[in-house]
Order: sequence, then structure tokens, then C-alpha cells
Amino acid sequence: MGEKKLEVLSVLVNNNYGVLTRISSLFGRRGYNIDSLTVSNTDDPAISRITITVQGDPHEVEQIVAQTLKLEEVREINVLKPLHSVMREIVLVKVRANAQNRSQIREVAEIYKASVVDLSPTSMIIELTGKPTKINAFIRVMEEFDIVEMCRTGITAMPRNNVEEIIRG
Amino acid sequence: MGEKKLEVLSVLVNNNYGVLTRISSLFGRRGYNIDSLTVSNTDDPAISRITITVQGDPHEVEQIVAQTLKLEEVREINVLKPLHSVMREIVLVKVRANAQNRSQIREVAEIYKASVVDLSPTSMIIELTGKPTKINAFIRVMEEFDIVEMCRTGITAMPRNNVEEIIRG
Repeated sequence: MGEKKLEVLSVLVNNNYGVLTRISSLFGRRGYNIDSLTVSNTDDPAISRITITVQGDPHEVEQIVAQTLKLEEVREINVLKPLHSVMREIVLVKVRANAQNRSQIREVAEIYKASVVDLSPTSMIIELTGKPTKINAFIRVMEEFDIVEMCRTGITAMPRNNVEEIIRG
Repeated sequence: MGEKKLEVLSVLVNNNYGVLTRISSLFGRRGYNIDSLTVSNTDDPAISRITITVQGDPHEVEQIVAQTLKLEEVREINVLKPLHSVMREIVLVKVRANAQNRSQIREVAEIYKASVVDLSPTSMIIELTGKPTKINAFIRVMEEFDIVEMCRTGITAMPRNNVEEIIRG
């Protein structure tokens, strides 16, 4: 068995009731661990895209793809390779903040090019967009402060035409 | 019956296999139309957050919340109000582009404060983060060009402590 890594599956499905249920129950039954999942519309109203990140070794991922392709509503699956894809996620982090530590929090946000999107006398909400490794690194730093709440969108991803990540990784 | 509007439900669930299946099958059986759905980790590894956007009138939304709360794995549901919440989504749009129309596309991207994240001789990928109404407006403009592929994360959202949207809506 190979090493387990985070893999991103981009699944195009016919947009009908039940497709999400069938996919999530397939993953559940087989014990595949979904790390994040997003469902959203595409430019064609009849088709939705489900983006799933899973932890698996190459053999497991191959099996997952084969099983998922058997579902009637599934039109296409792409396993996206980090180097050949744009992968993006948003995290919103609400931290307890006051006049004393506000500028420390703001400094971290600035270094990560994150934005302060809400500020109250006792809290701040910071928004960061980026690839998953950047999001994880940012969260590790924010854990120095008192996190009240955290929301992530999960990953959306698209193959690059230019393989090299020349523009703003 | 009231008017149908987009409502955002933020559902905290115990992170076990099957919870996504049970929620999506509940929505499917009752014919509630899921517009977007995201599942992701929270700062507590035992708890996941599922953010669901649905089209419904107030009575339907009340029913959805009541039904979902009956599921054993569901710990908490918040119906987020746009004015009182930070709502964010990412869209990636790949358009056919060449030397002739590249600067037109870039101009639209700049006005929306979107980023060009990939550029090949025949295509560009544009990334935009924002609240759902901004994302929808941007997509309408991009449809003037030849969209090859579009990916959205779906919405993640968090209640504001300051009700007014004073900072970068």
C-alpha cells in the first residue's frame, strides 16, 4: 500500500435529488474518510459539481473512483493533482480580541494577506482565501489566540492549462 | 405562504460516517432544493459544520430546521440572516482568452477585485471571493466571454458581532 495523501476528486453529476445521498452513502459504507465536500452549480443548470477531498493511498483512490463512476448520475470524475490545479478554500476565523491584542492579530492577518471583515469591542472575524496548505498554516498561527468559531468552505479546484504555478500560488 | 428566498443554514453535527447521508436524504425525501452545500472541519475534531443554502419561504425553512434538529447527530442549527452574517464563496472561472480579448477580461477582473490565477496562450482562470450576490453579478458579466469551466465552493457563513456591515461587505 502506498502512502496516504490528500486527494481532490472533482465529480460532475446530473443535478437530481438523491445524487448527494448516493455518493455520501457509498463513501460511508466503504469507510472512505471525507475531509471536505462542496456541492455547487455549474454553468449548466442540469449539472452539479461535487468536489470531495479524501485521505487515501493511490490504490484506495483508484477504488473510490471506480465505485463512484458506477453510479448512474455520475458523468465524469477528475482526480486533480496539486501541481496541475488551482485549489482554493476560504476560512473565516472569529477570535476574541480587545484593544490590547487587536494589533497582534492584525499583523498576522496582514502577513497572510487575510482581511478583517468584522470588528466588535470583543471580537474580530478574519477571512483568508488560499490553497489548503496556506489555510492550514494560517489556522495553526491563529490558534495562539482565542478562537471562538471557525468556518471553512472546503476546497474547490480546477485543472490549470499551464502546469507551472506561475501566478500567485 | 411567504416569498421564497435564499436561506443559509449552519448545522453543527457530530463528525461520524453517515451524518451527511442522513441529512441529504432528509432534504431529498422532502423535496427541499439544496442550492449549495459545504462540509468541513471545525476547531473541534469531533464536530463538523455543514452549511446549506436552500430556496424556501419562511414556513418551509421552519419545517426544514425542525426536521433536521430531530436527527441524532445534529447538535445545533443556526439560520443566518444576510445582514447579520459574513457570507463568503469562491468562484473559479476558466474562459477562452487570447491576445485580442485578454485585456478586456482583465479589466472586468480588476473592477471586481478578482485575481488572474492562471494564464495560458488560449485561456485564463479568474478567482473571485465575495458574498453570493457579488459572485452572481460577476458570473453574469463573465458570460459575455466564452466560459470553459466554472467551479464554486458554495457558501460558508458566520454571524457578525457587529450587526452593521461596516467592513468590506
